[in-house]
Amino acid sequence: MNENETARIESFSDGVIAIAITLLILEVRVPHFTGTEASMNLGAALLDLYPSYLGYFLSFLIIGTYWANHHQTFKLYRRSDHVFVLLNIFFLMCIAFLPFPTAVLAEHLMHPEQRQTAITLYAFGVFLPAFAWLLMWLYASKSHRLIDERLSNGFVRRQTLKFVFSNVLFLSAIILSLWNGVIALAFCFCLNMLYLIKPKKPEYLESTE
Amino acid sequence: MNENETARIESFSDGVIAIAITLLILEVRVPHFTGTEASMNLGAALLDLYPSYLGYFLSFLIIGTYWANHHQTFKLYRRSDHVFVLLNIFFLMCIAFLPFPTAVLAEHLMHPEQRQTAITLYAFGVFLPAFAWLLMWLYASKSHRLIDERLSNGFVRRQTLKFVFSNVLFLSAIILSLWNGVIALAFCFCLNMLYLIKPKKPEYLESTE
Amino acid sequence: MNENETARIESFSDGVIAIAITLLILEVRVPHFTGTEASMNLGAALLDLYPSYLGYFLSFLIIGTYWANHHQTFKLYRRSDHVFVLLNIFFLMCIAFLPFPTAVLAEHLMHPEQRQTAITLYAFGVFLPAFAWLLMWLYASKSHRLIDERLSNGFVRRQTLKFVFSNVLFLSAIILSLWNGVIALAFCFCLNMLYLIKPKKPEYLESTE
Amino acid sequence: MNENETARIESFSDGVIAIAITLLILEVRVPHFTGTEASMNLGAALLDLYPSYLGYFLSFLIIGTYWANHHQTFKLYRRSDHVFVLLNIFFLMCIAFLPFPTAVLAEHLMHPEQRQTAITLYAFGVFLPAFAWLLMWLYASKSHRLIDERLSNGFVRRQTLKFVFSNVLFLSAIILSLWNGVIALAFCFCLNMLYLIKPKKPEYLESTE
Repeated sequence: MNENETARIESFSDGVIAIAITLLILEVRVPHFTGTEASMNLGAALLDLYPSYLGYFLSFLIIGTYWANHHQTFKLYRRSDHVFVLLNIFFLMCIAFLPFPTAVLAEHLMHPEQRQTAITLYAFGVFLPAFAWLLMWLYASKSHRLIDERLSNGFVRRQTLKFVFSNVLFLSAIILSLWNGVIALAFCFCLNMLYLIKPKKPEYLESTE
Repeated sequence: MNENETARIESFSDGVIAIAITLLILEVRVPHFTGTEASMNLGAALLDLYPSYLGYFLSFLIIGTYWANHHQTFKLYRRSDHVFVLLNIFFLMCIAFLPFPTAVLAEHLMHPEQRQTAITLYAFGVFLPAFAWLLMWLYASKSHRLIDERLSNGFVRRQTLKFVFSNVLFLSAIILSLWNGVIALAFCFCLNMLYLIKPKKPEYLESTE
Repeated sequence: MNENETARIESFSDGVIAIAITLLILEVRVPHFTGTEASMNLGAALLDLYPSYLGYFLSFLIIGTYWANHHQTFKLYRRSDHVFVLLNIFFLMCIAFLPFPTAVLAEHLMHPEQRQTAITLYAFGVFLPAFAWLLMWLYASKSHRLIDERLSNGFVRRQTLKFVFSNVLFLSAIILSLWNGVIALAFCFCLNMLYLIKPKKPEYLESTE
Repeated sequence: MNENETARIESFSDGVIAIAITLLILEVRVPHFTGTEASMNLGAALLDLYPSYLGYFLSFLIIGTYWANHHQTFKLYRRSDHVFVLLNIFFLMCIAFLPFPTAVLAEHLMHPEQRQTAITLYAFGVFLPAFAWLLMWLYASKSHRLIDERLSNGFVRRQTLKFVFSNVLFLSAIILSLWNGVIALAFCFCLNMLYLIKPKKPEYLESTE
């Protein structure tokens, strides 16, 4: 893999992200009525799907903000190498996996016995891309310096801290889900809302250096 | 998110729109016959799927014209910011949701008890992207001026009026569907046909200014 | 829609075509065995799926060659307008529809009572994009001259004849299928093989003119 | 098809590869419990899906490394022609097919009677793109010289040997699977790990020539 190939990695990643985000709707199942249920109420059946709508909304937002952040962060990367490509494939594997925990959550959120397990899986599914994301940043910024060398050390350090901290938060959500599923899900929701905050502008070294 | 990034937003949106439009066909279900029905007539079963074909046709047209309009309107946007990116993700969430009400419509249009609910959901599904679209335009044109500053005030005002008016029409379709489903569906169909009309060319301020 | 916008239409079309071609595999159904069939032979079940493999192969080839031809023909188009965009959306609607007749064919080819209907639908599904294709060419070349004006009249006439003739052939396949399904399917297969022939190079007017 | 069109072939291939890789998750089936099983353990059901996770991981890695290699190798191709486009469509047909053997593997790996057949199909599914890949290289490098003419003969010969050898290895995996499924699957896994090794840089003729 040559240098300066981040553009094609970005466009492939955009493709996978766009597909994963759009596949989410396939997990919202159309209510089917068999013969004897024909008199059932479609309106009630549609309202009963609210865990599906919640999952769709939450996962769409998560993948959508990853898309925005992927782009934002890739502007900091100047070079690519073989390992970085593989780490990005691992990141995409985690993003493309998200429709599965979303569907499990939608299917089992209403069953008291299964709820907690479904939420733990979902919290794990949300943690995975954050973890892959951290690996990419650590690899690029620390050992191999694939990032823009003009970035100030302070900015790089703050980015590292931010990514480590968000991993700690997502891990906490997993642990929390073992204790109380609903609180953990609310926590995941709040974490996700943090992504909606505008990220900080990158800081570059002064050109006088 | 930097300025002048509308190109990448557009290409990601094109991706999501292309996927959502192509997923529609997955909701047209192949007729399966079990043992005892083996003598059934496939031709009749295929004709019975006409609500599915209608839904496919209608939703394909809706998403297809949104694609054309997305492009048309994005030529008016000159800058982007964080909130605008989030509003566009919300718009894509609404577009990618459309296969669901389409599938519900196809499944339940033929059941007199469920028909009205299915049409109300469909009208709501068609209203959602129009609403997100209006939010994007209001945000870009009013409070933050992300649009091309050379656009004439008259053109901007007429665009605002057009988007508000189409929201009113789609809301009317929802209300209408509570009273008479079939007329509401026909109304949705006609509204959609309006999208086929060539949009007006943008008007720019005179360069003498 | 401005002039010279064929590039974005092409890239959106490429997206829809790429998705439609990849969705075909979803219609090849994994054999499921329930309890009592556990001793069944997976090898035999996989071989029984040969109508699915045939459909996958044939439709992949059809959509793949449309992709190549779409590109080839779009080099002849120099301008676009609103109606042309709508015709292209209609063409994409026909391409994205193809997974459905393919799935019906795969499901019912082995049932003697349903075979003929399934093949008629498939022949119709294959005819549709050829028909939309012809409409686009007639609109662009005749009434509105969206095509490259340097193309020789002889080349334009031969293209028109070629597209009309292929429509006649696909229509013949539909009619043939009403009489004998298997022969019609073989005919469709051969028609498709014709697409594999390298298309003629465009001929331009002499620059002395 | 004109010369120097490898860019559009690459971007269409990227699209198909991105979709095929993302569709893999659809084959990981959400556990459904019917009434009487309501007390079943979701955690256990999720762990029982490990063949699905294995298949997802393995096939994601395979398609992901093909994406990286497709790009890497396309930098060696300088021209395209009609047959090359058709060979690339055949390659994409093989890549887009991979979700099917992956799903069969995930469904039947745990049934002792079906395991071996499922692994043979999977090994065959993994062999197919390697075979199409070899055909493309042989066609481009030998008979028609579509590749960069500045590439050294030694490098071209080593690439040919490498692609032939990997085909022999994948064929061995198929034969091995007829004897012992689990060893063959482990062998497939190891072969895939070889793809993770950084490919050699292309060698060019000296400019003094």
